This record gives sequence, structure tokens and C-alpha cells, in this order.
Amino acid sequence: MDFDNTARTELSELGEFGLIKHLTQHIKLNHPSTIKGVGDDAAVLSFKDEQTVVTTDMLVEGVHFDLTYVPLKHLGYKSIMVNLSDVYAMNATPTQVLVSFAISSRFSLEAIEELYAGMLLACNKMEVDLVGGDTTSNVSGLVISITAIGKAKADEIVYRNGAKETNLLCVSGDLGGAYMGLQILEREKAVFKENPNIQPDLSGKDYILERQLKPEARKDIIDLFKELKIQPTSMIDVSDGLSSEILHLTTLSDVGVDLYEEKIPIDQETYDTAREFNLDPSLCALNGGEDYELLFTVDMSDYEKIKNKNAISIIGHITNKSKGLNMIAKDGTVHPIKAQGWNALKK
Amino acid sequence: MDFDNTARTELSELGEFGLIKHLTQHIKLNHPSTIKGVGDDAAVLSFKDEQTVVTTDMLVEGVHFDLTYVPLKHLGYKSIMVNLSDVYAMNATPTQVLVSFAISSRFSLEAIEELYAGMLLACNKMEVDLVGGDTTSNVSGLVISITAIGKAKADEIVYRNGAKETNLLCVSGDLGGAYMGLQILEREKAVFKENPNIQPDLSGKDYILERQLKPEARKDIIDLFKELKIQPTSMIDVSDGLSSEILHLTTLSDVGVDLYEEKIPIDQETYDTAREFNLDPSLCALNGGEDYELLFTVDMSDYEKIKNKNAISIIGHITNKSKGLNMIAKDGTVHPIKAQGWNALKK
Repeated sequence: MDFDNTARTELSELGEFGLIKHLTQHIKLNHPSTIKGVGDDAAVLSFKDEQTVVTTDMLVEGVHFDLTYVPLKHLGYKSIMVNLSDVYAMNATPTQVLVSFAISSRFSLEAIEELYAGMLLACNKMEVDLVGGDTTSNVSGLVISITAIGKAKADEIVYRNGAKETNLLCVSGDLGGAYMGLQILEREKAVFKENPNIQPDLSGKDYILERQLKPEARKDIIDLFKELKIQPTSMIDVSDGLSSEILHLTTLSDVGVDLYEEKIPIDQETYDTAREFNLDPSLCALNGGEDYELLFTVDMSDYEKIKNKNAISIIGHITNKSKGLNMIAKDGTVHPIKAQGWNALKK
Repeated sequence: MDFDNTARTELSELGEFGLIKHLTQHIKLNHPSTIKGVGDDAAVLSFKDEQTVVTTDMLVEGVHFDLTYVPLKHLGYKSIMVNLSDVYAMNATPTQVLVSFAISSRFSLEAIEELYAGMLLACNKMEVDLVGGDTTSNVSGLVISITAIGKAKADEIVYRNGAKETNLLCVSGDLGGAYMGLQILEREKAVFKENPNIQPDLSGKDYILERQLKPEARKDIIDLFKELKIQPTSMIDVSDGLSSEILHLTTLSDVGVDLYEEKIPIDQETYDTAREFNLDPSLCALNGGEDYELLFTVDMSDYEKIKNKNAISIIGHITNKSKGLNMIAKDGTVHPIKAQGWNALKK
């Protein structure tokens, strides 16, 4: 797809410094921890007695996103949210991001402005300062690299390796929606390729399309933990799929797990769409990925605090390592949990 | 160029998690500020009463490097050094890096191991912990993104905007060498393309080739500042060329400058090679880029401290903004300084 540009400004007209100046001119810095943002050799931050959390992600056109159906503004928004999700998964508060991209000459200034606008929208929404980055040309396509920085008190940080026997296994929101949204987009792309005159049929798919195109990092869950005085024993965000993340948590924590299929939260729209595609909704939730929900474990004594929270589902419990990793299916049969999540190197 | 692989392991055999595990298995963490490195949603750092400095750079095959003459191990080494150079340019000490790359299936595991080995070599040399990153496939070519983190006391950090009238303008090491090294490599590539049987003629070019292929970030200069109790008033690293960096410093500091051509430090090998190519050595130093030296200003009262230091050249002085940016040539004529440095968007 080409971009619908009434105006098209070539990036080479601005040069690297011109482009950076143009894109960053309206950035406002809000965090007290941001001492110096864009414009020097490095950004300068100050966290005092809190610890610093830092994570980075790379997104590649043709591997992680397809610009035939992902608007650039959504892509920018999502690329920030995906990184902030990793900071929340440490039970930390994101404070700054650095944003780099490599772009081919196929992209105009107006296209990059869209991408950047999406990034800034996500930053503003999550109250994060954009403090640096790098911009360069690429031989072909678009590559985005984001580094997110956050802070937390040392005793608040939650690692992946702290799950203990009898802990409850919980997940926020619902799963499989982002994957089903992707199926819809891929189907309509195929239809469009066959006949460009047919309008895409996206009716009744708002929720799952938003799950795919505009995911929200779960700041609200971290806030809820603070409100309820819950310190999860382990946590990870669901980027590759529930089964893959369960594998990470249990392996690093050296424990087993019993997961109950009937407890896995699946939205009705996700469920119906999976059926439409002749897919098992539970498998979509287990292996779909990109939901950016938080998977975590809490002590049994926290049960009363979370049992009636709509945003949280208790989906299983941690067992002794010798018991292995099991999913108890709706019919009562027991299945081993295997990772079948997204593998960014397979493509 | 293909890589000389006696063994070739496809990356897809390992998968993303397998690759990360394989590459990171021998990482040792040394910094007291590193609480948690690779292996969770984010790394965790602790800087207490020091400020945090953070910078990021993206390197693209075909734009920033050419694998026909850059060995992957050197590329890895250089990609780290380039980022650490930005941290030193803040008068800060680098402490951690995050390393991401997107790689096409053209690269084998053995090739990526070489790249990673170069990165770890640079990290070990500069006593920096590799604490995170991301690894993904790319449609074509190699893209590297590095984020470097450092620390400094608040009153030690040096920004670009602090140069004051009568300050001395100084630069470390010598300039233009990396650019001349690149010219040699490009010439030999062209010769090789014409006739693959001709061996490359790199004799007598060791220094400039090393300047291009294996630059060293100037940790020693930062150490020297501490030893001499010098606090530069402004500083930037020379990545795009002396004239471009002078423009940044003076624009942000709102001052003018007199630069003396005869004072610009140029190594004999650089000088001779420039002449061989019918290039003006001073222009190579002014516009060449990639030297990763430190350009800085100090108060006049620091003159006695630095005048006899081999590693530092005084190349000019800061003037009132109304005087403009001038280079006084060897013949006494005065020329305005313009940025003609590297523009990564022009390609």
C-alpha cells in the first residue's frame, strides 16, 4: 500500500538533524526524573532511591507488522505500548522512552509524522517522556527499536522467578483477541488482493481489531496491586501466548502448574470469530500472543482481595515441579502445556 | 561476501529463545549497579544518588556498514564503542548496554556469534554489563540497535550548551583517520570487484584502518579530566565530523568560534593517505566523521593543566556569537564553518 499523501516531503530534504528537530519540536517533558531529554549526546535521568528498570524491543516490517493493513499511527502507538508492557510486567512505572527507526526512502516525512504522532499519543497517555532516539535510512522497509525505562522501589519489583507452590496463577483481561484480530486483517487483505473493489468486511469485529491494532499496556493492573496492597510473587506480560509465558514463569521459578481451560478468559467476540475460522478458541488464547495482558502469581492469602475483580481471572495454581505443567481441559482430561507461541526467527 | 563457515547452524533451528539463551549464557555481570540482567521482562539497575545517562544508536547494513570489508566481530565491537562514546561525551561512566538486532536468514548462528563476541569484547574492555536486548529476523540485511546507560554525579555531567566566550576549544586524539581508512577499504573493494585474484593492498595503513574498523571510545580522556580536576564547560563526541560537531556546540551554547586549521590534529598516515587520494587532509578532518574523539571547551584558567597533554589539542577558542563561526586557514584567510558531515538520510 502506498500512503495517501496529498503532501509528500522527501526525508532527504530535511536531513537527519532536520528530521529529528522537526519530529521532536513539540515534545513536552513531564517526569520529575527527566533532567535532560532529546538534544544532547545522551538523555539524563535521576531516580534517587528508586531502582531503574530498562527494556528494549525491535519491530521489523514484514516480520512484526504489515503496513498494508496497519496504519502508521497505530503502529507507533503499539510499538510504545508493547515496551511499556514489559515495564509494567516488572511492577514498575514507566517514565521515559527512547525511539529509533530506520526508514527507506519509500516513506515521506508525512508518513513518519504519523508514526511519531502515534508514539507520542501513547507516551502522553501513559505519562512517559520521550527523551531520545536515533533516525537513519534503511535499504528497504521500516525497522523500529524502542527502549523503555521505568522506576520502582527495590522491594516492589516483581521478577519472573518468584512463583511458589500453592500460589494462584492469574491473568488480567482476556486472551486470544489480538490473534483473532490479526486473522480478520489477513483474511481481508487476501480478499482485497483478489478483488480490490471489494470493501473490507470488518463489521462486528471492533474489539478484536482494537486488540490487534491498538493494545493498551495494563497500567491499571499495577495501580490495582498498589490499591489492594498485593505484591505478586512472579509476573510476565503475555506477548508470545499464554502457554509460552507459563513456560517462562514456571521454568524460571522451578515449579509446576495446573491450568484450568475453563478459567481462561476469552471475550465473546474472540470466541465467535475463532469458531468462524474453525479454530479452537482456547488454543487461540493459549498460543495466539500479542495480548499484552499480565500473567502473574499471588499468594493464596490474596484470594479474597482479587476474587471479585473483573479485570483479573484466576486460571490455575502453582504446584510442585515434579507434577509438571498441566492443562486440565473442560472435559477433565489432562494435557501437557507446550510453548507454541510466536517465534520471530521462523519467518 | 559470504562468511567462511565450516559449520553453519541455521538460526531457525534454535528459535528466538534458544538463540538468546545461547548468546547470553556466558555473560558476566560486574557492575554493582546491575541488579538483574538478561532474562526477565526488563533489566533492573540501581544508581542511588547518581544520575542516569542513556543514549541509543541504530546501525543499518548498506547505510552504516558494508559487510564486504567489515568483519562481523569488528562491527559488534564498533557498535558498542560508538554508543559508549556518547556516554563519555556527557562526562559520564557507561555501566550497562542493551543490544538488539534484526537479521536475515542469510546469517548463520556462527555469524551472529562473531558479532556478539565483538560486542562482549568491547563491553568487557570498557567494564560495561550487557543487560538486555531483543533478537528478531529481518527481511533482508542486518540492523543493530544499541542502548547504552551510564552514571555520573549531577554536577559532573557536561552538556553541549555550556560553552562560554574565551573558553578554549579542544579535541582529543587526531581526526580524519577513520574517514581515510574507509577510503582505503572502498578502494580495495572496487579493485576486488574488478579482479578477485588481486590481493588487497592494505600495507602501511594499519592505523587508519583500525580507526575505521575498531574505534576506541575515549574513557581515558574522562579519567584525565578527573585526575586534572577539569570540568569541561561543553562536550560532544566527533561522530559526524569536526565542523558538524562545532556547529552543534556553538549553536546550542549561543556563541561564536575561531578555529585554527594548523591546530587540527592529523596523524601522518591520515595526512599521507589523503594526499594519495588528492584530498585536502584538513577537509578530511573537518568533514570525515567516525573518529569518536571528544570535542570540548574548557575555561581559560585550565590552560596550564592541558597545554602539555599529548592526548589533547587546543584548536581554537570561543567568541561572541556576533563574530560567527570561523576557521582561520594556514594561509591566514578566514572561512565560515559549515556542516558537511555524514547524513544518514541521504543514502
